[in-house]
Amino acid sequence: MNNIQSYIKENKNRFLNELIELLKLPSISADSAYRNEVLKTAEAIKISLENAGCDSVEICKTDGYPIVYGEKIIDENLPTVLVYGHYDVQPPDPLDLWDSPPFEPVIKNTELHPNGAIFARGACDDKGQMYMHVKAMEFMTSTNQLPCNVKFMIEGEEEIGSANLATFVKNNQEKLKNDVILISDTGMIANDVPSITTGLRGLSYVEVEITGPNRDLHSGLYGGAVANPINVLTKMIASLHDKNNHITIPGFYDKVEELSKEERAEMAKAPFSLDHYKKALDINDVYGETGFTTNERNSIRPTLDVNGIWGGYTGEGAKTVIASKAYAKISMRLVPNQDWENITQLFTKHFESIAPKSVTVKVTPHHGGQGYVTPVNSIGYQAASKAYLDTFGKTPIPQRSGGSIPIVSLFEQELKSKTILMGFGLDSDAIHSPNEHFGVFNYLKGIETIPLFYKYFTELSK
Amino acid sequence: MNNIQSYIKENKNRFLNELIELLKLPSISADSAYRNEVLKTAEAIKISLENAGCDSVEICKTDGYPIVYGEKIIDENLPTVLVYGHYDVQPPDPLDLWDSPPFEPVIKNTELHPNGAIFARGACDDKGQMYMHVKAMEFMTSTNQLPCNVKFMIEGEEEIGSANLATFVKNNQEKLKNDVILISDTGMIANDVPSITTGLRGLSYVEVEITGPNRDLHSGLYGGAVANPINVLTKMIASLHDKNNHITIPGFYDKVEELSKEERAEMAKAPFSLDHYKKALDINDVYGETGFTTNERNSIRPTLDVNGIWGGYTGEGAKTVIASKAYAKISMRLVPNQDWENITQLFTKHFESIAPKSVTVKVTPHHGGQGYVTPVNSIGYQAASKAYLDTFGKTPIPQRSGGSIPIVSLFEQELKSKTILMGFGLDSDAIHSPNEHFGVFNYLKGIETIPLFYKYFTELSK
Repeated sequence: MNNIQSYIKENKNRFLNELIELLKLPSISADSAYRNEVLKTAEAIKISLENAGCDSVEICKTDGYPIVYGEKIIDENLPTVLVYGHYDVQPPDPLDLWDSPPFEPVIKNTELHPNGAIFARGACDDKGQMYMHVKAMEFMTSTNQLPCNVKFMIEGEEEIGSANLATFVKNNQEKLKNDVILISDTGMIANDVPSITTGLRGLSYVEVEITGPNRDLHSGLYGGAVANPINVLTKMIASLHDKNNHITIPGFYDKVEELSKEERAEMAKAPFSLDHYKKALDINDVYGETGFTTNERNSIRPTLDVNGIWGGYTGEGAKTVIASKAYAKISMRLVPNQDWENITQLFTKHFESIAPKSVTVKVTPHHGGQGYVTPVNSIGYQAASKAYLDTFGKTPIPQRSGGSIPIVSLFEQELKSKTILMGFGLDSDAIHSPNEHFGVFNYLKGIETIPLFYKYFTELSK
Repeated sequence: MNNIQSYIKENKNRFLNELIELLKLPSISADSAYRNEVLKTAEAIKISLENAGCDSVEICKTDGYPIVYGEKIIDENLPTVLVYGHYDVQPPDPLDLWDSPPFEPVIKNTELHPNGAIFARGACDDKGQMYMHVKAMEFMTSTNQLPCNVKFMIEGEEEIGSANLATFVKNNQEKLKNDVILISDTGMIANDVPSITTGLRGLSYVEVEITGPNRDLHSGLYGGAVANPINVLTKMIASLHDKNNHITIPGFYDKVEELSKEERAEMAKAPFSLDHYKKALDINDVYGETGFTTNERNSIRPTLDVNGIWGGYTGEGAKTVIASKAYAKISMRLVPNQDWENITQLFTKHFESIAPKSVTVKVTPHHGGQGYVTPVNSIGYQAASKAYLDTFGKTPIPQRSGGSIPIVSLFEQELKSKTILMGFGLDSDAIHSPNEHFGVFNYLKGIETIPLFYKYFTELSK
C-alpha cells in the first residue's frame, strides 16, 4: 500500500493521544458500579468509527452492554472483512500494585519496549489492539486505498463472557455476513519474532460456595467437632489435581485432542528460554502437568485454576472464628473438542460428589466458551502471513495460545467463516494484571500491518 | 447472704440498662479504627468500679490498650479475690448476618432464653459476664456484706491475645497478690445444668502468605504452567489433616495429655444430644478426629482450623487471573502440656517444608497461650460449687472447655494462684458470631451466685 509509513509518521502523536483518551474511560464490565463509564465508552467507539470513514454506525442494544456496529460497503462483489474487538476491560485491582493509576495512561520505556509503552488498564486488552483497526481503517479510507468491504463489531462484555453476543450474532446473520473475521486480542512471541495465533483454549468459569454451620462459630467451643467450610473447601480443591497435576474430574480428559510427536516437535521450535521465563516472573521453578513442557502446559493442555478464594475473617489482626461459608472462583481452560458446557456439568457433578456430608455445596456456572483451531492453509491465514512478512521482514510463526476468546467458535458456527487472530501484544504486557501496557512499536506496527492484510486477502480471494 | 434476691429484683432494670450502655461502645481491639471507642470503654469501666465501691481505681497504661485496676481491701488478714475480665470485643462482621446492629443492644426472647436475652457484640463475651462481678461487688459493699478483699483487673486486649497483660502482671506481682482468681468468660451446659469449667485449651494463631509469580497473571496465558498460589495454599492446608482428621504436623501430638478411660467415662456423663447439636447448627453431620466423641473433639483434643482465607479476585463477576499471593489465618487449639510457642515453631517448620519450590512461604505468628486445668478439690472450686448449689439447686458439673483464656496459665505462673472459671453463658449464645447474646436469667443468676462464692471462699479459707 502507498505511503502507509509516512501516514503513520505524520499522525503518530494523534494516534497515541486518541488511544490515551479512550483508555481514560474505566469501562469495567464486571463491576456494575461502572455502568455509566462502560456506556460512555460505547459512545466514544461509535464516534471513532464514524471518523474512520464507516458509513453507518449504530449502537446496538442488548440485554447487557451494547455492541457498536459500523460498516463500509464499497462493492457487493468484493470480499468482506468483519473486525471484532471489545471496549470493556478487566477490573484493575489490586490497585496498590499499579505504579500509576490504571485509568490515567502514561507512556514509559521498558526493557522490551525501548520506544515506550502505554500503561493503562485495557492498553493491550483490548482497547489498544482494537483501536489499531480503527486507525488502519482511517488510513485506507482517507487515502482511497480500501480494497474491500469492512464491518466492525465492537462489544462491551468480552471480559464477563460475552453473554449477549451470541443472541446478537444469531439475530443478525445477514448484517454480519463476511468472508473472514479479523481479531486482534492475542499476542505475538516477541517484537522481532512475529507470530499468529492458530489455536485458543476454551473456558469454563464457575463459582463454588461451601456452607457448614448456619452461623459463624467460636473456633474454641466448636473447633475440631464441626466441619470448617474453609478447611473442607481447601481439601476439595486440593483433590482436583493428583500428584502429577492431572485434573481428577472423571471424564475431564475424554475429548482432549492429543497432539502428534510431529506437532509437538513443531511447537518446540518456537524460541523459548525457561530461565528468562522464570526470571520474568521471579519464580524459582515452574509447575504443572507431568510429561509436558511449559509451552505445552499453557496452550495444548487443559487446566484448572482458582482465580479467587475467600471466607472467614480477612481483616486486620486475629479472629478465632469458624466461618459459616467459604467461596472460590474456579476456571478451567479447555482445549479444542472439550465442550465447555459438558465440562461445567462434569465439574459440578464431581465437586458435589466429593463434599463431606457435614457441608452443603453450591456450584454456580459463570460463563464459558469453546476452544478453537484455525488452519494455516486458509486464504485468511496466508494473507495475514504475507502482511507480517512485509512489515516485520519475517514470516510469522503459527502459535497455539493458552487464552480464550469464546466467541471465535461461535462465529464459525453462526457465520460460517474463519477467524484470523492478528495479535500484536506481548505476554509480558501484563494484561489482566497491574501495570498492563502496550508497546508504542506494537500499536503502530499493527496499524501498518492491518491494511496489508486487507490488500492480500482481497487479492487472494479473486 | 441476706436479701440478695430482693436487691436484684429492685435493681434489675438498672442492672440491665447499665450493661446496655456499656454494650453500645464498639470496643473492637482488633481494628485500630476503633481505638478511641476502646479507650472510652476503659473510662466507663473505671467509673463503674468506683460506683461499685472500689477504693482506688486507676487506668493503667500499657504499650497497647490500658488495664483498668480497682480494689477494696477491708482486712489484710482476710483472703483476697482477684477478678479478671476484659472490656474489648471481637469484630462484629459479617455485619449483614446480624438481625439487629451489633452495637445497638436489644432484649429479645429466644427458645433457650424465655425471659429474654440481650443481643449485642460483647453481651456475653465478656462485657456481660464481667459486669456481673461489678454488680455483685456493688451489692456486697452497699449492704456491708463484703466478706474479704477484692481486686479487679479488667483488660482491653483479650480478643487480640492479651499482648501486654503478661508484662503488667510480672511488674505488679505485689499489687495483684491474691488467694484465688475469679473469671467469668466461659459457659455452662444449660440454664438448668450448671457447670464449672475445669480445663481450657491453649492457642497458637498464625498467618500464612504464599507468593508465586511477582504479579497477578492472565490465567489463560500462564494457567497450567505456573504454580497458582491459591491452588498451592489449598493443597498445603489440606495436607495438614490426614484421612482420620489427625493433624499431620510432625511432633504435634507429642505432649498431648491422653485421658484415662475413667476420665473419658466421667466426661461422657455430661448431658449431650447429638441430634439437638446438629439441629442447632443446621448440619447433617458432625466432623472431626476419628476415635473421639464430639465433646472430646472440642475439649480434650487439639485442633487446627482456618479462620480466614483470601486471594485473587473476590469481587462481583469473574476475573481470569492467577493471583501473585494467597493468604490464610490459621489457629490451633492446644490441650494442657502442649507448649504454644513450641507448636508455633513446629507448624512454621512443617508449613515451610511442604511448600513446592515454585512458591515462597511466610508464616507470621499472631499470638498464643497455654492450656490449663484446675483441680476440683481446691478451696476455690469447692466454694464455687457450693455457691451454684445454693442458687441453682444443683451441684455444678466439672467440664473441660474448648476455648482458650491464655492468661489463666500466666496467672498461675506469675501470681502462684489458681483460677476459678465461673461462666454463666451458653454455647448457643453465639459469642464471636453474629447475633451474640446473653440471657437475662444468666446475667442476674451470675450476680446472685458470685457473692456466695466470696462468702464460702472466705469461710473455707479459715
